[in-house]
Amino acid sequence: MLPLRLQTESHIPLYVQLRDQLRALVHSGDLRTGDRIPASRELAGQLGVHRTTVANAYAELESEGLIQGHVGRGTFICGAQIKEFSPPPRTTGNGGVMRWESLFADDRVDEVLSRVMPLVPPGAIAFTAARPSEELFPLEEFRRCLNAVVRREGRRILQIGSTDGYGPLKEELLSLLRGDGLNLRSQQLLITDGCQQAIDLVCKAFLRPGDSVALENPAYPGAIAIFASARVRTLAVGVETDPARTGHVGLDIGALETVLLQNRVKMIFVTPDFHNPTGTALPIAARRRLLELAVRYQVPVIEDAIYARLRLRGSALPSLKALDTAGNVVQIDSFSKIAFPGLRVGWCVGAESAIERLRLVKQSTNLHTDQLSQAAMAEFMRRGYLARHLARMKKVYRSRLAAMEEALEKHMPESTSWTRAEGGMTLWVTLPPGFDAAELLIHARERGILFLPGRYFYSQHPQPNTLRLGFASVDEKRIAKGIEMFCDLLKFEMRKRQRGMREESHARVALV
Amino acid sequence: MLPLRLQTESHIPLYVQLRDQLRALVHSGDLRTGDRIPASRELAGQLGVHRTTVANAYAELESEGLIQGHVGRGTFICGAQIKEFSPPPRTTGNGGVMRWESLFADDRVDEVLSRVMPLVPPGAIAFTAARPSEELFPLEEFRRCLNAVVRREGRRILQIGSTDGYGPLKEELLSLLRGDGLNLRSQQLLITDGCQQAIDLVCKAFLRPGDSVALENPAYPGAIAIFASARVRTLAVGVETDPARTGHVGLDIGALETVLLQNRVKMIFVTPDFHNPTGTALPIAARRRLLELAVRYQVPVIEDAIYARLRLRGSALPSLKALDTAGNVVQIDSFSKIAFPGLRVGWCVGAESAIERLRLVKQSTNLHTDQLSQAAMAEFMRRGYLARHLARMKKVYRSRLAAMEEALEKHMPESTSWTRAEGGMTLWVTLPPGFDAAELLIHARERGILFLPGRYFYSQHPQPNTLRLGFASVDEKRIAKGIEMFCDLLKFEMRKRQRGMREESHARVALV
Repeated sequence: MLPLRLQTESHIPLYVQLRDQLRALVHSGDLRTGDRIPASRELAGQLGVHRTTVANAYAELESEGLIQGHVGRGTFICGAQIKEFSPPPRTTGNGGVMRWESLFADDRVDEVLSRVMPLVPPGAIAFTAARPSEELFPLEEFRRCLNAVVRREGRRILQIGSTDGYGPLKEELLSLLRGDGLNLRSQQLLITDGCQQAIDLVCKAFLRPGDSVALENPAYPGAIAIFASARVRTLAVGVETDPARTGHVGLDIGALETVLLQNRVKMIFVTPDFHNPTGTALPIAARRRLLELAVRYQVPVIEDAIYARLRLRGSALPSLKALDTAGNVVQIDSFSKIAFPGLRVGWCVGAESAIERLRLVKQSTNLHTDQLSQAAMAEFMRRGYLARHLARMKKVYRSRLAAMEEALEKHMPESTSWTRAEGGMTLWVTLPPGFDAAELLIHARERGILFLPGRYFYSQHPQPNTLRLGFASVDEKRIAKGIEMFCDLLKFEMRKRQRGMREESHARVALV
Repeated sequence: MLPLRLQTESHIPLYVQLRDQLRALVHSGDLRTGDRIPASRELAGQLGVHRTTVANAYAELESEGLIQGHVGRGTFICGAQIKEFSPPPRTTGNGGVMRWESLFADDRVDEVLSRVMPLVPPGAIAFTAARPSEELFPLEEFRRCLNAVVRREGRRILQIGSTDGYGPLKEELLSLLRGDGLNLRSQQLLITDGCQQAIDLVCKAFLRPGDSVALENPAYPGAIAIFASARVRTLAVGVETDPARTGHVGLDIGALETVLLQNRVKMIFVTPDFHNPTGTALPIAARRRLLELAVRYQVPVIEDAIYARLRLRGSALPSLKALDTAGNVVQIDSFSKIAFPGLRVGWCVGAESAIERLRLVKQSTNLHTDQLSQAAMAEFMRRGYLARHLARMKKVYRSRLAAMEEALEKHMPESTSWTRAEGGMTLWVTLPPGFDAAELLIHARERGILFLPGRYFYSQHPQPNTLRLGFASVDEKRIAKGIEMFCDLLKFEMRKRQRGMREESHARVALV
């Protein structure tokens, strides 16, 4: 085992600590050329840190030429010697069967998204999802839209289309966006396969390996996954859930400024409205400060607006894009939370030059987004079905959010807290320090209750005592029952823990 | 202007020549630290080479640390000095308006795909497309499938799905693939957004910047675009169109072996059936030799099978995947050529470990492929509509191919040649040496005839005297008329050229 010791309380990022300690071991001669160092997964396990932390440290050391990965063999300490090409004919030690594992370009590809979409056993009450409630999909209306567009424009829909998007959908979206206070030209709008693709395109278009992105911590795991596999460093900026501490909830703007001051930040990625996982919304003053910083440091901002249309209470706030006078903001959005995630249709808007570049990148990525779904959604909007469906869903989600808050207030034990979401699909719960939500989940699953441990959402410094509760796809009755059961379990585990601590202190006394 | 001189006749790749000459200019002191060198687009124009050539040379020099790009300022010669971080607060010289251009991660993003899909003026006869004929789309049958699946499984379709693909479509495809002689497990099949995405996923999963791919030359521009923007080097392997020369048409297997011997090749990308743009099909002996080479050099093969189901004459050949006993081949395919390109649905099959890695990469790229189109195509197959539609389209394309060949044989002037395609959607025409198809196109467009100059398809050594004719989306009458007009123009231009050459030789005599 390597003599490494990371300090989680330090203000120095963990990956920087790890990088510097590994470098020191090489300089001291403790590690020498040819020595194998552990795989990132393995070392992450040993150190109890997120794999991205190790991967980031390794990426930096690799770019310094200090370590090198050999496909299929591992990662090794190396000098700066130039690699010469050796004649290739290789004998096949395994009867000629291809070993694809030896070809993987990257070990930073992770099952992170599958992990946050676990299988739900039948009968379980799952607070895991942040997705719309499928029982309420207006299938008949949607089917009518499909028939109309295939009858009217079927040949055009089924033929190859243009990368920027299907014309009728772009027109409907421009009109929707005008309602948000955004007066945009068609060239400022690109249709995507959804926000996940939008982040991937942004990453391809504007970020190179080694670049740094300021990202909320915790954050959407799909964003963390993209940045990690593109070898982009994520600079974690805390998300405040307790308004008493910094004066506002949401992205900690003071911490963001420190990050901008101390690093060459290439991009800020932020979800100002109903941030996943915490459910927080950034107040307007903080939005303005964020944009001021973006202009001062000339850093573009990617605004993830996927939950913004799901405001369930309080008054609407202008989006960053609506407040953006300097053209710093690219806003990404999608139908996944307000309509149908099974259709992969989203969009992004921004400065024309940014959108044009994203269009070119999308062209070589997958030509264009599926046109049948684009046409169907255009018709769904044109007929007013989307507005009606969204209004109905907000009513349902509002009632479910109220049911969840009522149950939490009634049953949650002392020294726990949770966010007061004004919209979106999730709440964020903080358990007493020292509690591990992943351990709690083991017992909860036995009782048929599921939630997501908070650690899945952190790119750095995971807080094991946090967890996410999704309220949108569970009905009120099951919410009431599920939260009561969850709280009973939590109280039981808290008592068990206190008893354990008391016994431990008794034991210590006995030993002394 | 830099004193650079590339020799197109040399066996040394152009980008290698360029790299070495630039390096020599630095070593000789003609170029010094801080000197700005032209943008790749500019230098490509000056040298009359493809931009990828310059981009590849620059990529190598950059990885050597000899040049460096500064966003928004250009590319500069540099020493190996370590860049220190300078404190960031930057003043905004342009009133705070974001300059997105200064943030582009790459200048190797090109309009390559739009170029091969030009706008067609009304009334023109366009031989540009390699796409199905939309007049013959069976809209009523497709609409019935949509209604059936939305009624039967609408909630499941519209809810978020799994990355590997929609179950019923996977089952239909496994059965289709059994008909090709492939007995596969479900874990060996991944649904994609089409072949363009499949190539992008393959690139992300298995290739790193600086890796080399052996690629047909000419090749599908969408593949060239992906590799270029991922900073993957393409090693051009000729495609034989004259069976008299190497004994077979298609990828030159001898040249491939030379490339494998002389380079560390990470992957072979090949379209054995009805290669785009040449229309050639690789004979079975050459397929076997290709697979032997892949095993000997332990290089994986990506088989683009997108046109394989469009065999219009002659007997079917087994695919590389069907001949692959070592698990070296990942086959990519799609509905785009046999059904509807406006639906972005394709698939790839291969060894389980390769497919599993591609699935993980797809998950963070766009979660999953649109489920409405997946479900509709599953139903379209289940009802036998796809088989029926494909049989009908093949009959139509067979007749169009015959019409095109008849017109070419009747009207084409001497010293031209074209490929005898046994399937697919395109023929490849070679004009006399010295002719430039791009110039010919200017005159052809004036007469209402469009085709694609061959140079769009080359990653290296473009042959300006080649062009692609697509026959699938033009009816027989217009083919006859269009080819006759095209040949008339060609004869006219050839006479003009001969006259010019005669006059020039007269002029020379007069001068002497």
